[in-house]
Amino acid sequence: MSKQVANKPYKLVNRSAHPESTVVRVGKHFVGDGSPTVIAGPCSVESREQILDIAEQLKQCGAHMLRGGAYKPRTSPYAFQGLGIEGLEYLAQAREATGLPIVSEVMDTGSLPAACEYIDAIQIGARNMQNYPLLRAVGKTTKPVLLKRGLSATIEEWLMAAEYILNEGNSNVILCERGIRTFETATRNTLDLNAVPVVKDLTHLPIIVDPSHGVGIARYVPAMSMAALAAGADGLILEVHQTPETALSDGQQSLTPLQFHQLMKRVEHYAAFQDSFDTEASLYG
Amino acid sequence: MSKQVANKPYKLVNRSAHPESTVVRVGKHFVGDGSPTVIAGPCSVESREQILDIAEQLKQCGAHMLRGGAYKPRTSPYAFQGLGIEGLEYLAQAREATGLPIVSEVMDTGSLPAACEYIDAIQIGARNMQNYPLLRAVGKTTKPVLLKRGLSATIEEWLMAAEYILNEGNSNVILCERGIRTFETATRNTLDLNAVPVVKDLTHLPIIVDPSHGVGIARYVPAMSMAALAAGADGLILEVHQTPETALSDGQQSLTPLQFHQLMKRVEHYAAFQDSFDTEASLYG
Amino acid sequence: MSKQVANKPYKLVNRSAHPESTVVRVGKHFVGDGSPTVIAGPCSVESREQILDIAEQLKQCGAHMLRGGAYKPRTSPYAFQGLGIEGLEYLAQAREATGLPIVSEVMDTGSLPAACEYIDAIQIGARNMQNYPLLRAVGKTTKPVLLKRGLSATIEEWLMAAEYILNEGNSNVILCERGIRTFETATRNTLDLNAVPVVKDLTHLPIIVDPSHGVGIARYVPAMSMAALAAGADGLILEVHQTPETALSDGQQSLTPLQFHQLMKRVEHYAAFQDSFDTEASLYG
Amino acid sequence: MSKQVANKPYKLVNRSAHPESTVVRVGKHFVGDGSPTVIAGPCSVESREQILDIAEQLKQCGAHMLRGGAYKPRTSPYAFQGLGIEGLEYLAQAREATGLPIVSEVMDTGSLPAACEYIDAIQIGARNMQNYPLLRAVGKTTKPVLLKRGLSATIEEWLMAAEYILNEGNSNVILCERGIRTFETATRNTLDLNAVPVVKDLTHLPIIVDPSHGVGIARYVPAMSMAALAAGADGLILEVHQTPETALSDGQQSLTPLQFHQLMKRVEHYAAFQDSFDTEASLYG
Repeated sequence: MSKQVANKPYKLVNRSAHPESTVVRVGKHFVGDGSPTVIAGPCSVESREQILDIAEQLKQCGAHMLRGGAYKPRTSPYAFQGLGIEGLEYLAQAREATGLPIVSEVMDTGSLPAACEYIDAIQIGARNMQNYPLLRAVGKTTKPVLLKRGLSATIEEWLMAAEYILNEGNSNVILCERGIRTFETATRNTLDLNAVPVVKDLTHLPIIVDPSHGVGIARYVPAMSMAALAAGADGLILEVHQTPETALSDGQQSLTPLQFHQLMKRVEHYAAFQDSFDTEASLYG
Repeated sequence: MSKQVANKPYKLVNRSAHPESTVVRVGKHFVGDGSPTVIAGPCSVESREQILDIAEQLKQCGAHMLRGGAYKPRTSPYAFQGLGIEGLEYLAQAREATGLPIVSEVMDTGSLPAACEYIDAIQIGARNMQNYPLLRAVGKTTKPVLLKRGLSATIEEWLMAAEYILNEGNSNVILCERGIRTFETATRNTLDLNAVPVVKDLTHLPIIVDPSHGVGIARYVPAMSMAALAAGADGLILEVHQTPETALSDGQQSLTPLQFHQLMKRVEHYAAFQDSFDTEASLYG
Repeated sequence: MSKQVANKPYKLVNRSAHPESTVVRVGKHFVGDGSPTVIAGPCSVESREQILDIAEQLKQCGAHMLRGGAYKPRTSPYAFQGLGIEGLEYLAQAREATGLPIVSEVMDTGSLPAACEYIDAIQIGARNMQNYPLLRAVGKTTKPVLLKRGLSATIEEWLMAAEYILNEGNSNVILCERGIRTFETATRNTLDLNAVPVVKDLTHLPIIVDPSHGVGIARYVPAMSMAALAAGADGLILEVHQTPETALSDGQQSLTPLQFHQLMKRVEHYAAFQDSFDTEASLYG
Repeated sequence: MSKQVANKPYKLVNRSAHPESTVVRVGKHFVGDGSPTVIAGPCSVESREQILDIAEQLKQCGAHMLRGGAYKPRTSPYAFQGLGIEGLEYLAQAREATGLPIVSEVMDTGSLPAACEYIDAIQIGARNMQNYPLLRAVGKTTKPVLLKRGLSATIEEWLMAAEYILNEGNSNVILCERGIRTFETATRNTLDLNAVPVVKDLTHLPIIVDPSHGVGIARYVPAMSMAALAAGADGLILEVHQTPETALSDGQQSLTPLQFHQLMKRVEHYAAFQDSFDTEASLYG
């Protein structure tokens, strides 16, 4: 094991340095404890009514955490940029109403302190995976951090980004595979599920998967969700919207509440299968 | 549906033109009938003893077909190029001994007629996915064809390659996702499991997955095998070798027979789960 | 032309909206005025002596601007992170001594105001191309901005990033192609010179090329520099170090002062060729 | 130098084994002798009249060789597949009329012997770069071979493909960079001009560049042609068609004869510049 430590440029995130898998607590929920975590919600917080209503539905379907963007990194300066602090306020109200911990993206060090007063977990988006001042700043908080893989980041670069956070003292990092950029145009990105067993091998941090961005087309999201869990992911983060066709962002990849409900049934059934197999597997071990 | 036909450049492989999923018969085995097909064997046929021995073990573990390379496309002209017709002869003997149908790669039109006398299914490798004279030639046979996706082929180009085969009259085509080339270097290729639901949506042909080439490292193959099935693949093609460390090619990604046995147990357990869920799912449908 | 405006998501950077090419003034130097601009300097400012000495040599070779990193975005938290404000101070002293305007990277909004007191042009690095809070902040200054293309940014995304800056009121943007990430491993990145004529066609902003990062190996830099100019680039940005083998960062891709001197001779000769041909070309026009 | 031989998997194409640059003779023309070779012609041979007419025009503009496809590898089985042997016959007539040597693609070993009776140089297309039976077959002829780089081939894999040809006894290989597949969609492919100095460093074989396929849009071809020569390429291969808008294939990337004429003027002017500089350069050497 020491050989692996010696060869890799990361130390604190290296599994060799910490063989036991890390479990990250967000509110009262534990990520990486062996049962799949499901984070769900709309791409953007659009209004108070929208987020309170969807949170209630997600809660009833069995989601464990609520996601929603208040600060939106958009390719165009003319696109909806999010409600900002007002959006965080609505998320907090949704947590109050449902008990679901909330995760939301922070894009710069300036808005981090205010955001930390509202949210339970800080999301670092793909575009900011190598925003080192921001990584250092979240590393100085005690909040759990959902660190998305950059669009063209190697697994090693991604783990080095996590290392920046741990190196500041915050080891509550959850990695999130969300698709990489390739030549393929049939899907929005190429979800790299290879990353799941590789990351599990190299690091002790939990990893979840975002099939909504990874494939970018709602009707393919359930299949890729199940594939992510079968690859060994610790959970999923999914976009769900009441009326995807009128969403202010990412409607094409959002599930409806009914589709989410059906997917949750499958996830729960799969979790039971995993448990039964793990017991049975020991018969052959 | 007619709109989809109109928009896509492929006609015969288009699901709109043939809504029912195609089931391809290889020997007495059916690919795409709802239960997962497992094809296994060494990268290269190395000797008569090797292939007869491994075929027997694979059979006992529950494999449905035997793979083995007799003509090997190698990056270097100085690398082992396969046993040629002698390798096919050994494969046929293994089929005789075990009853497993055999699949092997053919690289040019010249060796196709002789190969067809031995093998049950013709593999077209990734490097030859757009070798149109070869596609036309296999299209004129009645043999099932395992068509691997090219290293940097879009899904549309891949389906167009299948269209070449169907256009010659042979509709026994099985697609095989085997990883695409990206910037990531932690794995040999990037297995694109997005392709599974996309292909299922666009075409009626069955699709299997090759996690051995897709990830390239044996210890990650079981996780990616399960992920492929969960994504909806009709089967797997896996490299298995008695002693991977001495294999003449691709040892790094080959499972041992014991690892294969354990993976088969998991595959069978998963198939049972799928069946049980599909029944239960109808309760919510 | 109005059709092009209508089809593209960018407005202010669109050449259709501003047919004349923009010339950006940095100190007393003009970028995009028809003669090639050469920006040169070490990857990192390492000491006062180093930067004053190299600035003097570059000035004598004919460089037009001095580059040097004070804030360094490094993949590893354990690598040299730059001298910070002290580095900017040394750069300013080098400008005083040589008259060369200075360009240096800024990584976050927090350090921007202080940096603006020292530098003549702000570099936005590849990792921050979609750091929207930072783009907005530099858009509110009046400083020229050198906007590097992201590692996996499409040309359209890059122009949209420039649009963020212009949309805040700062139209002094110089685009910089620095190589994209592909599967090729023989070079550090793949310098995408196609981007030069494409950008010239789509936008009125000047574009320079960074062959040091684009190819990543010093002995290939002169060839790619000449190729960039022949493709129509308005200039080059080059890494030069007194002793590349002991550089604190990017030594492998840094030219020595002598290599830089020889390249400048070629650049100047080529500029004269261009002028003579443009005159002669009108004979055939 | 022997160290380089030891580290690289190619031997015969390795510059260390053959420090002098190889000059390949095609008809009476020499490729790699220091002055740029220009190969031009339509994507496809469409008719006798078309090819005789364009050949005459290209000859008058100063082209050195004529290209034209008789066997066309097309993504769709429903697209024009070329005139076959009839097309080769017309090409031979064009050679007779103009004295220009002719180069045309061969796609399989079956049609190679007949093609060799007509053509002066055999083109191996990008899709067949790793078609090893075909590489071996052309290696057994004495014809010059134009070996295009595969769409996602590393430089090393490309040189290994050349090694297959040399290993059979034919060392008349001209490499051809024609763009690689990346995520960028503004251009058809990404012309990798980095490959030019890298290939010149690693091997003794000449290299030419195909900007028509590399960028895929006619108005960007002249800029990329000049960039290729400035990077050190030994020549260009260009698509030219009398009426690109009615071409049976690749019209979007074809120059008109007038555009080709103007480009040739620039190429000739540039060649003179190179010569003058090389003389002058020795003053500083």
